[in-house]
Amino acid sequence: MPIRVGLLGFGTVGSAFAEVLAAQVLAGSGAPEIRITRVFNRGVARKKAHARAKFVPADAVWTENVDDVLTAADVDVVVELMGGLDPAEGWLRTALGAGKHVVTANKQLIAYKGTELFALAAAKGVQLLYGAAVAGGVPVIPGIAQGLGGDAMTRISGIVNGTCNFILSSMETGADYAEVLARAQAAGYAEADPSADVDGFDARAKLCILARLALRAEIAPDAVPARTISVVSAVDFAYAKELGCTVRQVAQAALVEGGVSARVGPMLVPLSSPVAWSHGTQNMVVTSGRFGGDVVFSGHGAGGHPTAVAVMSDVCALAANSVQVRPPAQAMRVSGEVVAPHYLRFIVADEPGIVAGIAGVLARHGVNIDAILQHRGHAPERLPFVVTTEPCSSAVLADAVAEMGKMSCMVEPVVCLEILVADDKATD
Amino acid sequence: MPIRVGLLGFGTVGSAFAEVLAAQVLAGSGAPEIRITRVFNRGVARKKAHARAKFVPADAVWTENVDDVLTAADVDVVVELMGGLDPAEGWLRTALGAGKHVVTANKQLIAYKGTELFALAAAKGVQLLYGAAVAGGVPVIPGIAQGLGGDAMTRISGIVNGTCNFILSSMETGADYAEVLARAQAAGYAEADPSADVDGFDARAKLCILARLALRAEIAPDAVPARTISVVSAVDFAYAKELGCTVRQVAQAALVEGGVSARVGPMLVPLSSPVAWSHGTQNMVVTSGRFGGDVVFSGHGAGGHPTAVAVMSDVCALAANSVQVRPPAQAMRVSGEVVAPHYLRFIVADEPGIVAGIAGVLARHGVNIDAILQHRGHAPERLPFVVTTEPCSSAVLADAVAEMGKMSCMVEPVVCLEILVADDKATD
Repeated sequence: MPIRVGLLGFGTVGSAFAEVLAAQVLAGSGAPEIRITRVFNRGVARKKAHARAKFVPADAVWTENVDDVLTAADVDVVVELMGGLDPAEGWLRTALGAGKHVVTANKQLIAYKGTELFALAAAKGVQLLYGAAVAGGVPVIPGIAQGLGGDAMTRISGIVNGTCNFILSSMETGADYAEVLARAQAAGYAEADPSADVDGFDARAKLCILARLALRAEIAPDAVPARTISVVSAVDFAYAKELGCTVRQVAQAALVEGGVSARVGPMLVPLSSPVAWSHGTQNMVVTSGRFGGDVVFSGHGAGGHPTAVAVMSDVCALAANSVQVRPPAQAMRVSGEVVAPHYLRFIVADEPGIVAGIAGVLARHGVNIDAILQHRGHAPERLPFVVTTEPCSSAVLADAVAEMGKMSCMVEPVVCLEILVADDKATD
Repeated sequence: MPIRVGLLGFGTVGSAFAEVLAAQVLAGSGAPEIRITRVFNRGVARKKAHARAKFVPADAVWTENVDDVLTAADVDVVVELMGGLDPAEGWLRTALGAGKHVVTANKQLIAYKGTELFALAAAKGVQLLYGAAVAGGVPVIPGIAQGLGGDAMTRISGIVNGTCNFILSSMETGADYAEVLARAQAAGYAEADPSADVDGFDARAKLCILARLALRAEIAPDAVPARTISVVSAVDFAYAKELGCTVRQVAQAALVEGGVSARVGPMLVPLSSPVAWSHGTQNMVVTSGRFGGDVVFSGHGAGGHPTAVAVMSDVCALAANSVQVRPPAQAMRVSGEVVAPHYLRFIVADEPGIVAGIAGVLARHGVNIDAILQHRGHAPERLPFVVTTEPCSSAVLADAVAEMGKMSCMVEPVVCLEILVADDKATD
């Protein structure tokens, strides 16, 4: 009996899924037979002219009416590749309610509504798989679910937004933020409105999905502070390099007393840390376990084919009657506060007493300075310099930064970035 | 109904497993109840005095008779942590035959006898899980099985022997082979007889396990050429650095026309390749898929607790009634030959005409020279220098090397290392 797939969406990922599936069938790889029987998309005539439409079996039904797929008798698995909360949520509820397995790449839906949807799937005796929702073709979700369930994971760190990683790793080699963003938009890596990516909303949805699975913590995405990467400039990469670091958009969540510390934003990352390894649109997730230490997953986090591989792998698991391990999670309080060393970058109009003023503010807030860096060759009316702190509370430091922001010498808002600390260790 | 575990072996991994399991239970993590009911080990009295014996439930039965565990009515899962082919194979056949699930860390057994044992497990309707057999706490096996089954994987590369990686990454910072080996032996990373590690036999067993799962190719471990790392010396790291590389023991298998190209040995690895990222006893596996490109898994590949995490994760998957995806594999022919650039290092007693002689041998075999490197400051009677080649057949080059080895100037055997080529790409 073949596994019959109803596909919602025949765009970049949907059409790549059809191609990956056809290649598997052709390869006679011995995988259980999986067959697309129905395809929903607006503008079916246009989609049927798509170069990859040939990978859909000739007898499949194409429809512009989603209900023709969600509850169809000849569909065992609904594969949802449309994205967004609405109307996708209603569709998946209908499909699960009709006893269909669901495979989705929809990170927003799983982040915001996963708990309810998993419960519905369990009640109906079907599975809701979402391996493509985080890090595309990198098997982070199945890897954690099936391969790390035996550890007590305490922290998860990731580079889970390919757009930001493309922008920041390009800036590392000298490009300017605005210029790289425009290049990313032209190449299709970034949306016309890049906010979901650069301001961290995409990454924090993924972080919440990872926190539920790895930390067993249900956290509300909106409670996770997200900071934009758009404040990062070329000078930050120069100073970061001097500190043995680079800059990346990092999403991190850790179990702490009373809940979860979680945040997303640009951070200084030591070049010795695996988090600094990712370049271009690559993704990377590092889990930290009490017993197993750090485990790194990395690869192509975006793009049609890598994402389609994740979707296809979930469908293969369903076809093999493999039930994914789903540890129970509990609701936890989120704090954006972290105790860590920080990097402060100032652009000032030079005048006597600036360093003394800044040092004074930090001292009054009990924050110790680790280093002061000032490169030569900048104009005195726009002088960038950097102060790094010893580990301190991000909340306390935010107060100090607000106070420093009022100093008359400040030409731009102070940029404050956490410095990621590498501390991998496994128990012996 | 708890899952009842019968443990074979209460050494480093077995006792760590008991600790990891106890921590899960204490953490009330919601994992299904898993309970050790029986422990087999020689010298029970001594083992019961082990500091971690307290993690075994007080009512568990300790025994020096393995049959008390293999077919016991109060055992659902036999966890085998003894290693070796014999008597482990017979034990596991008995356990599977009695309808017990088996979780094992035994790489030799899975590499040499996996196909038969999987068939036996399937016939008995039980599972044989082996996540700990490759890369310890790094979830490579479940990650590939559950998360990459949708890709058509064409190559697998790995650093899967922590001892060799410890030795070579230590040599990278200037240490001498013999000295580091002695240090590794003192630290417990290397056996008194280090042959299984340094000569590549351990790594090739793991490579065969990965090839079966990722490439769906059954290959005989003994057919995979394994070359020793003991020929690598400090001077090779100096030349490798000049070439933008380091040296690692790499295990690689790739689908080629008519079979599988597979080999294990020291190779030059570009510093830009993820394979160069691993330091110390870390493990790393890179899968290359036709559609998803390269995926990297890395972390702690050895040690009691990381390995115990892999074992525990397999037991958790059994407890969740999760059936691992197991793609069918077929027997394939192995070739050790590869077309790649190579590194040749000579130690010669200097005399006129050496380079001309070497170049002449290479030319007669149709091998093109890419670069000739010779550092200053070496004694003329033991002069090391290096020739790198353009991509050429390793078999052809081996003939040339044999011929060069007969040149009167050679003070030591010629060292010939493959240069790993980084070529990650996903389909767009």
